[in-house]
Amino acid sequence: MTDPSLPALERRFYTELLGTALLLAAVVGSGIMADRLAVGNNALALLCNAAATGAMLYVLIGMLGPLSGAHFNPAVSGVMHLEDSLPQRDFLVYVAAQLIGAVIGVWAAHLMFDEPLMQLSHKVRSGPFQWVSEFIATFGLLTTILLTRRNAAASVAAAVGFYIFAAYWFTASTSFANPAVTIARALTGTFTGIQPADVPPFLISQFLGAYAAMRVATFLTSTKGH
Amino acid sequence: MTDPSLPALERRFYTELLGTALLLAAVVGSGIMADRLAVGNNALALLCNAAATGAMLYVLIGMLGPLSGAHFNPAVSGVMHLEDSLPQRDFLVYVAAQLIGAVIGVWAAHLMFDEPLMQLSHKVRSGPFQWVSEFIATFGLLTTILLTRRNAAASVAAAVGFYIFAAYWFTASTSFANPAVTIARALTGTFTGIQPADVPPFLISQFLGAYAAMRVATFLTSTKGH
Amino acid sequence: MTDPSLPALERRFYTELLGTALLLAAVVGSGIMADRLAVGNNALALLCNAAATGAMLYVLIGMLGPLSGAHFNPAVSGVMHLEDSLPQRDFLVYVAAQLIGAVIGVWAAHLMFDEPLMQLSHKVRSGPFQWVSEFIATFGLLTTILLTRRNAAASVAAAVGFYIFAAYWFTASTSFANPAVTIARALTGTFTGIQPADVPPFLISQFLGAYAAMRVATFLTSTKGH
Amino acid sequence: MTDPSLPALERRFYTELLGTALLLAAVVGSGIMADRLAVGNNALALLCNAAATGAMLYVLIGMLGPLSGAHFNPAVSGVMHLEDSLPQRDFLVYVAAQLIGAVIGVWAAHLMFDEPLMQLSHKVRSGPFQWVSEFIATFGLLTTILLTRRNAAASVAAAVGFYIFAAYWFTASTSFANPAVTIARALTGTFTGIQPADVPPFLISQFLGAYAAMRVATFLTSTKGH
Repeated sequence: MTDPSLPALERRFYTELLGTALLLAAVVGSGIMADRLAVGNNALALLCNAAATGAMLYVLIGMLGPLSGAHFNPAVSGVMHLEDSLPQRDFLVYVAAQLIGAVIGVWAAHLMFDEPLMQLSHKVRSGPFQWVSEFIATFGLLTTILLTRRNAAASVAAAVGFYIFAAYWFTASTSFANPAVTIARALTGTFTGIQPADVPPFLISQFLGAYAAMRVATFLTSTKGH
Repeated sequence: MTDPSLPALERRFYTELLGTALLLAAVVGSGIMADRLAVGNNALALLCNAAATGAMLYVLIGMLGPLSGAHFNPAVSGVMHLEDSLPQRDFLVYVAAQLIGAVIGVWAAHLMFDEPLMQLSHKVRSGPFQWVSEFIATFGLLTTILLTRRNAAASVAAAVGFYIFAAYWFTASTSFANPAVTIARALTGTFTGIQPADVPPFLISQFLGAYAAMRVATFLTSTKGH
Repeated sequence: MTDPSLPALERRFYTELLGTALLLAAVVGSGIMADRLAVGNNALALLCNAAATGAMLYVLIGMLGPLSGAHFNPAVSGVMHLEDSLPQRDFLVYVAAQLIGAVIGVWAAHLMFDEPLMQLSHKVRSGPFQWVSEFIATFGLLTTILLTRRNAAASVAAAVGFYIFAAYWFTASTSFANPAVTIARALTGTFTGIQPADVPPFLISQFLGAYAAMRVATFLTSTKGH
Repeated sequence: MTDPSLPALERRFYTELLGTALLLAAVVGSGIMADRLAVGNNALALLCNAAATGAMLYVLIGMLGPLSGAHFNPAVSGVMHLEDSLPQRDFLVYVAAQLIGAVIGVWAAHLMFDEPLMQLSHKVRSGPFQWVSEFIATFGLLTTILLTRRNAAASVAAAVGFYIFAAYWFTASTSFANPAVTIARALTGTFTGIQPADVPPFLISQFLGAYAAMRVATFLTSTKGH
């Protein structure tokens, strides 16, 4: 059941598209800028990239949350659907908006930084350590969202921004934690890319992490056996 | 129609002037300090410059917002005027205050850092990639302001501060996104300058970005066709 | 007396375990990532490690605070017990959850970063200067928690996150300030480790600091002699 | 007239002493740590020093504000006295607490970092550019406090923390903006010191800046001539 105070589905389509586009422009654009300026200092480049990403998530969730829920992430929309707060038709429209928006965002970053629009990444991000990282990253993101909104809905934007900043650092994969982000980042040959062949296991890890988070959040907040 | 709870226009003139002066002192001053200390590490210099700017925007909007709206930006005042929330006379007074304040702020930074007061920048910031960057930067800033204040007015200060911090990184132009800031930064030969010849296309991009944001914000929040 | 609005003790056990595990994964994981990327620039490595830790504390306390109090720290649980807000049985269950969770978190970090699961640290952190640092670090943490929650409960999460970020820098020990964190960090040979022999004096300093904080907080907020 | 909800003056004495001590321990301690680890990278050292200081100010004002007002600064107490919100006896007690606490804080930092307790700085911080910087730094700090508390008292702690972070960067003096801090920092030969001979002109600039801020804040918020 959709929150009846939200705008019509068409408007929410454009809201999710806009938000995901700005998110990817921020992730990929700040990665390019940081990588170019840091000339080989990867700790500094990742710090700038992570801080810009976290800051933008805070901004986007605060400004678009009341209009669409500010998912920008098929794993989030999927959990909302499984929890019966997003009907199937809305879920499919959200995922479409997120995928289209994510690709537009990558291209916007390329456009601003004088890069060829169409690219494919050759950056290897593979192996069990990366997959465990994506499982934990997505598990942490979804528990953050599901538990924070119960008690302090007004601070979800800050919680997600700070979480992703931290997770850039504490996971070996730098925490994609978002299938739309992962797919779109296959389309950039810059700092934040991931080669297409490495995308599918990331998506599987992300959905497993999201599902585990849903179960754990339900368990921790259940009142049965109180 | 001006908010009747605001002070008289003369007071708001001085408020906008003070706020824009402190903003430019922070932008240009932190640019000088960061550039001097970072001795060639431009990623580190930009990180310090961006963090100081974002922090100061948060402070200034929080402290002066209730007194004048804390625009500090002709693009913001222009959108408020087009939306009928700032009468034409007030709009002109705001822009005058912002321009005068911005120049005073640049000079204050020069004064503190033992630089000649009067300077002109020779830094080239030109070409279509810069202009697209300024369009996107200003579009993002105005959508942030217009949408955040509808739902979470108390967090506009934080949203603008974090947005500008992020946009320093994800746009190729480091996100001026403000005509008064752009004009005043032509008057410094230091880290944050822009040569005078490159100012006009920045201003055009900024006004187009602001106008697009106004239209998009109206569309996304419209209830027609709900 | 336990807050009756909290879940059953079993649920709170898992909440404390999960929170402490995610905290240690963030501390140790971001330490490994920062140390690897910063290749010898220890100031930059500590900045990234401290920022990721502070951000994660903000997230975890905000999301789990309403479910268990979000102690994640035997020194905090001990003070709550001494203040009669955590019965002895609950106190023991909390400490067990924190110790188990902390070890799981260290192992999760090792798993993500392709490190041997079982390790022991050889990093020397000893001597009176380190012990004074831990006393002050824990004293500051507990006064922050005890005084902030009286007046601004909603900002305890931000206060603790920012406090620990600052204390990484202003104490010579980088502020462990938590017995469960200290013990678990003996089990990693990476950036954030502490050799087992140096753990006991850290624990003593931490408990003394926590106790002093409890007395000072009581004194400052007492109304006797008003 | 003192706020009658505050504790007795003796308690507030200890509160101001504790807060100023923790502030100076953070300023001087993080300066030592950052300077040692950054080995000559002064931009990185100042970034860490500024971030730790701003974070600690946020924490201290949030936790001690309701107990004493959390001045930690004779310039702030002086303005409160001139505005009739702090009687003369209280003002003198506050300043004494701030001076004693500041010195204790410097010594605590020395103790933690294995430095001789008693030191004198030899760092030159002199000349008209430094003095203008201190005038502007203190003017900005006091306008921030006076105007933010009128409209958004709950965000004074964040505003002061972010302001000081920014002002470390945009003033040539790195923004002491506090007579007790200035005097105490003459007692450390480390990164954040100031040689004793350079203290008096800093104090004069600070009091002039504070007085100017009081006048400007009164003017901007006056309703005369509305």
